Amino acid sequence: MQIGMMGLGRMGANMVRRLLRDGHECVVYDINPASVEALVTAGAIGAASMEEFVGKLTKPRSAWLMLPAAITSRVVDQVADLMEPGDIIVDGGNSYYHEAVDHAARLASKGLNYVDVGTSGGVWGLERGYCLMIGGPDSAVQHLDPVFATLAPGADAGMPAPGKDAGTAPFGYLHCGPSGAGHFVKMVHNGIEYGVMAAYAEGMNILKSANAGKRQRTADAETSPLENPQYYQFDIDIAQVAEVWRHGSVIGSWLLDLTAGVLKADSGLTQFGGRVSDSGEGRWTLKAAIDTGVPAPVLSSALFDRFASQGESEFADKLLSAMRYAFGGHVEKPKTGS
Amino acid sequence: MQIGMMGLGRMGANMVRRLLRDGHECVVYDINPASVEALVTAGAIGAASMEEFVGKLTKPRSAWLMLPAAITSRVVDQVADLMEPGDIIVDGGNSYYHEAVDHAARLASKGLNYVDVGTSGGVWGLERGYCLMIGGPDSAVQHLDPVFATLAPGADAGMPAPGKDAGTAPFGYLHCGPSGAGHFVKMVHNGIEYGVMAAYAEGMNILKSANAGKRQRTADAETSPLENPQYYQFDIDIAQVAEVWRHGSVIGSWLLDLTAGVLKADSGLTQFGGRVSDSGEGRWTLKAAIDTGVPAPVLSSALFDRFASQGESEFADKLLSAMRYAFGGHVEKPKTGS
Amino acid sequence: MQIGMMGLGRMGANMVRRLLRDGHECVVYDINPASVEALVTAGAIGAASMEEFVGKLTKPRSAWLMLPAAITSRVVDQVADLMEPGDIIVDGGNSYYHEAVDHAARLASKGLNYVDVGTSGGVWGLERGYCLMIGGPDSAVQHLDPVFATLAPGADAGMPAPGKDAGTAPFGYLHCGPSGAGHFVKMVHNGIEYGVMAAYAEGMNILKSANAGKRQRTADAETSPLENPQYYQFDIDIAQVAEVWRHGSVIGSWLLDLTAGVLKADSGLTQFGGRVSDSGEGRWTLKAAIDTGVPAPVLSSALFDRFASQGESEFADKLLSAMRYAFGGHVEKPKTGS
Amino acid sequence: MQIGMMGLGRMGANMVRRLLRDGHECVVYDINPASVEALVTAGAIGAASMEEFVGKLTKPRSAWLMLPAAITSRVVDQVADLMEPGDIIVDGGNSYYHEAVDHAARLASKGLNYVDVGTSGGVWGLERGYCLMIGGPDSAVQHLDPVFATLAPGADAGMPAPGKDAGTAPFGYLHCGPSGAGHFVKMVHNGIEYGVMAAYAEGMNILKSANAGKRQRTADAETSPLENPQYYQFDIDIAQVAEVWRHGSVIGSWLLDLTAGVLKADSGLTQFGGRVSDSGEGRWTLKAAIDTGVPAPVLSSALFDRFASQGESEFADKLLSAMRYAFGGHVEKPKTGS
Repeated sequence: MQIGMMGLGRMGANMVRRLLRDGHECVVYDINPASVEALVTAGAIGAASMEEFVGKLTKPRSAWLMLPAAITSRVVDQVADLMEPGDIIVDGGNSYYHEAVDHAARLASKGLNYVDVGTSGGVWGLERGYCLMIGGPDSAVQHLDPVFATLAPGADAGMPAPGKDAGTAPFGYLHCGPSGAGHFVKMVHNGIEYGVMAAYAEGMNILKSANAGKRQRTADAETSPLENPQYYQFDIDIAQVAEVWRHGSVIGSWLLDLTAGVLKADSGLTQFGGRVSDSGEGRWTLKAAIDTGVPAPVLSSALFDRFASQGESEFADKLLSAMRYAFGGHVEKPKTGS
Repeated sequence: MQIGMMGLGRMGANMVRRLLRDGHECVVYDINPASVEALVTAGAIGAASMEEFVGKLTKPRSAWLMLPAAITSRVVDQVADLMEPGDIIVDGGNSYYHEAVDHAARLASKGLNYVDVGTSGGVWGLERGYCLMIGGPDSAVQHLDPVFATLAPGADAGMPAPGKDAGTAPFGYLHCGPSGAGHFVKMVHNGIEYGVMAAYAEGMNILKSANAGKRQRTADAETSPLENPQYYQFDIDIAQVAEVWRHGSVIGSWLLDLTAGVLKADSGLTQFGGRVSDSGEGRWTLKAAIDTGVPAPVLSSALFDRFASQGESEFADKLLSAMRYAFGGHVEKPKTGS
Repeated sequence: MQIGMMGLGRMGANMVRRLLRDGHECVVYDINPASVEALVTAGAIGAASMEEFVGKLTKPRSAWLMLPAAITSRVVDQVADLMEPGDIIVDGGNSYYHEAVDHAARLASKGLNYVDVGTSGGVWGLERGYCLMIGGPDSAVQHLDPVFATLAPGADAGMPAPGKDAGTAPFGYLHCGPSGAGHFVKMVHNGIEYGVMAAYAEGMNILKSANAGKRQRTADAETSPLENPQYYQFDIDIAQVAEVWRHGSVIGSWLLDLTAGVLKADSGLTQFGGRVSDSGEGRWTLKAAIDTGVPAPVLSSALFDRFASQGESEFADKLLSAMRYAFGGHVEKPKTGS
Repeated sequence: MQIGMMGLGRMGANMVRRLLRDGHECVVYDINPASVEALVTAGAIGAASMEEFVGKLTKPRSAWLMLPAAITSRVVDQVADLMEPGDIIVDGGNSYYHEAVDHAARLASKGLNYVDVGTSGGVWGLERGYCLMIGGPDSAVQHLDPVFATLAPGADAGMPAPGKDAGTAPFGYLHCGPSGAGHFVKMVHNGIEYGVMAAYAEGMNILKSANAGKRQRTADAETSPLENPQYYQFDIDIAQVAEVWRHGSVIGSWLLDLTAGVLKADSGLTQFGGRVSDSGEGRWTLKAAIDTGVPAPVLSSALFDRFASQGESEFADKLLSAMRYAFGGHVEKPKTGS
């Protein structure tokens, strides 16, 4: 079927390639003409402006937006102005699901359909397929089914095909509910991702310290002594451990597969400094937990560790040192790395 | 090769079956004669006492213990008394790695080898293979290599075989270091497992509350109001979400595969009450983090949530209610489930 | 000076009494005539309607609202409709500071002043004085200074009076910034309060378990063993400990004073069930931390423990039990209290 | 009465001064003769060796040790060798309570009494009195009562004296149980202290970010946007806020008194770098929580934040960045302070 794609960054461009490869017709537009050109070469129909982009779409039009969260809202309104009742706008970016709820309500009054698609798979999606979490009106979601089926990974290779009544989830895409439900589920997906990543990272960090008993330790009142150094004499090869856990352990996962690959290439992680960004979904997940009164101590710990890695605990830490000095005369030790 | 297995519970018995299947000779012993008999039928050599068990082993003897953590220490000493220099005792149970360090030091003076094997794979190991994390003297670990190779999953089906210099990790077993290192790595594995499980559980719990805006909410000073109910109108099918995440998402994992299976069978989890046990490794992991000064907020949150599920936050919570009453006159609301 | 007070619940009524006692003229109104009557007897000027209330105030009018957060917004608008440029509306309740920011912007266009006052002190404020955190335009805050000075505790008895340039903070009230700043600071105050309360509660709970080594412990695979029971043989008198910590320790505080009183009266806390409410500020504090990227692991842990005490971790815990069953065949233990 | 004091650092020396001031006879010893000399000048009886120190004590001897935790154990054994049945050794340092339990068991067989005294009050104790948490045999604790009564703050000035049956807690000292109970209660005291300090520090850090809406924010995919900058326009004077909270608020405390003093002197905390030490008790408190299965999420968060401030989350954070790069191609932003 035909689909329009606006926003041809890494994610958008790869999705177009996957769609073209499966025989779909793709109309593409990006503010950067070179991005359009590259996909035209690959078989897509290019557009030089938003108007041309919408104009080349067959009714009912389906325009998929793959844009930075910061500008999505504005572009949705611009595209909507060019569209007609029955047309469909898809937001496949990492937008806050609140916006999907708000957009859908506003666009419904114009007869437009708003479909939000949470898209997971990162840079691997082109080959592996994207996991799609979809929100929106039934008819519009149904209409786009061929596109979703192509973008998603599809049935597991070498496994019996899932039955008709198993729905689409076994193929890697799911209509989760009305507009907003797709980005909501994707948001929670990322919240979980932060927690899972932090679990591995903390565990690996403990493995790395398994030789703490070999290190010389300052014996002053500001350093807690290591009681039983004989239990911390191990030099663990963390890259090998990550690899062995991939095979038959309870914690095997795709993230672990990637982690093992990273550690194999550079076990000291020398190219990283340890400033961990967060891109919004973890924050929104926590706000949802707070709004609904659901405990989320693991997900919040994972998020706050990222904040701390960004330097944001500095004032609090200074204050703690100041308090210790005030009540106990404790003088701060010089700050050094681990 | 020949291996002795003592302790024929679910794990031990399955391991014997996997070893027999691959052509190894297994001498087996358990305090329960029926367990011995069942494996003799399957091809193992049975023993009626610990003495007979050790007597039937060829020198250098290899006795693998698969026992509850609480009795392992005692049995190790009993077996050691029956053995001779050069023999090997393997502890494949969930023992605290401190004990492996202590045992190894004590047994080394008798010329005995102590090998600790952290074994992951649960009830699925018979078919899937066990992930083995191994600690102990080089020669003893080398001697047992054929046994490890059989118990572990082996190279991935359909993938090119790992090169010689990739070591054994790609086959699912790894010599992690001297005695204790195997149980240390397994301990951290389980610590991570707690964190990963909690990340999924918290996220799923948030999904389940995505319809909070539909519920009637008491409007009293003791209930925090839901500001924007329009954003919490989703009835998410959690079982389907778990399934879709298995296909192409960043958080795909073996635990998620199992979780999807569980939710498919019983999406309300009606057969569970929510009392989550912990079996030691999570606690030990945290103690190691504390000893070595490594931050582990995610792993500790996961552990403490289990403690709370066991009812252990009750007194603290009563005290909080008492404080609120004392400073603000707040009267506690009756306790009801969610 | 003259001040109008609307909302004569426990807090509002006590504040009027404290104001009357110090010679201020109070015009009072409440939807419940009996509450008005009680204060008229104490010397206040009563009003039978909102219109009469506003009518009895001298220009520039000062109307202090002490209402439940849920209805404050609506009443602010009603009162504002009756007022004239230069008049002042004070919100002394536990409103979300976002509302103060929004109200102030809206009312400023009518020439009205909006002052938000975070008020701490609970049921003890009448005698002890209230700690006041104030946001709003300089002139309006300045105008209300005599009222703030009366409501606040004033200078410490028996201490040298603070100098002129020390500002008003040593007297227990502070102009924190423009409209919204008062409720913002009060919000964070309560966030801290949650954390401090939880720190005491967790510590007390550990003290209560200091005799864990005396208890019989089930020896099964689902119960983590207590390694060294000899270290947990203490029957600590928690009420006495709370009392002794009040005298000379680093953690002495007003909350500890109250806690000691509570435990002295009922060391088993038998009148409480352990369902801990939260009234909004803790949630808002965390949202502010999330918005601004500030790590708040302690404050969030305290909040999430309250959510858990309200039963909201139930589904997550069931899911954990289900996962354990799925990968390890672990059967859940029956749920019992501590 | 007579008491011997060994270890004349800041804490030990001040305690001797407080005891002398109240008419007690103090025999003092330190490895540093100048420390002994200073107290002899103040009226104490000096000793030049451990033998002389013990020799100058009247039977039953009472020797109070105020030493670094790292050497206490060794010195206890040396002093014990010089003592006779009925004598008393007091450990007033920050020792692990396990050692008190072990020492007491060993010394009891020689007829010696071991008394452990947790001592809180820091550098302020000389004037303010020390809060004493005491463990040991009844008779020995009873014998030392006059010393405890002097060191402790005593009854509150200006308050009615507590009744006889109120025990000693209102005077600031408490016999908590058998040997080890004193250090156990002190350990938990410090665990709580970490939590309370962190609650203040996190809250203050949020206040400091209340102007986040004024700051320019990078608009890239690695920076989560601030949704509503209009709510973060406050420049809060944190020093003034700390001061106002001291007067009538729910979170008033001695730690807040000190914090206000610190911030008044240097609101930017420029003399501190933010490396927060921990001296053992916080770690031990958590181990006790883990052993006894008590949830302590707040206390652990506070401890782990200190570990992170010491640089110990570095490897974990690098690993998180590496994972993000591996699945999403996210390039790490340069590390800068807040």
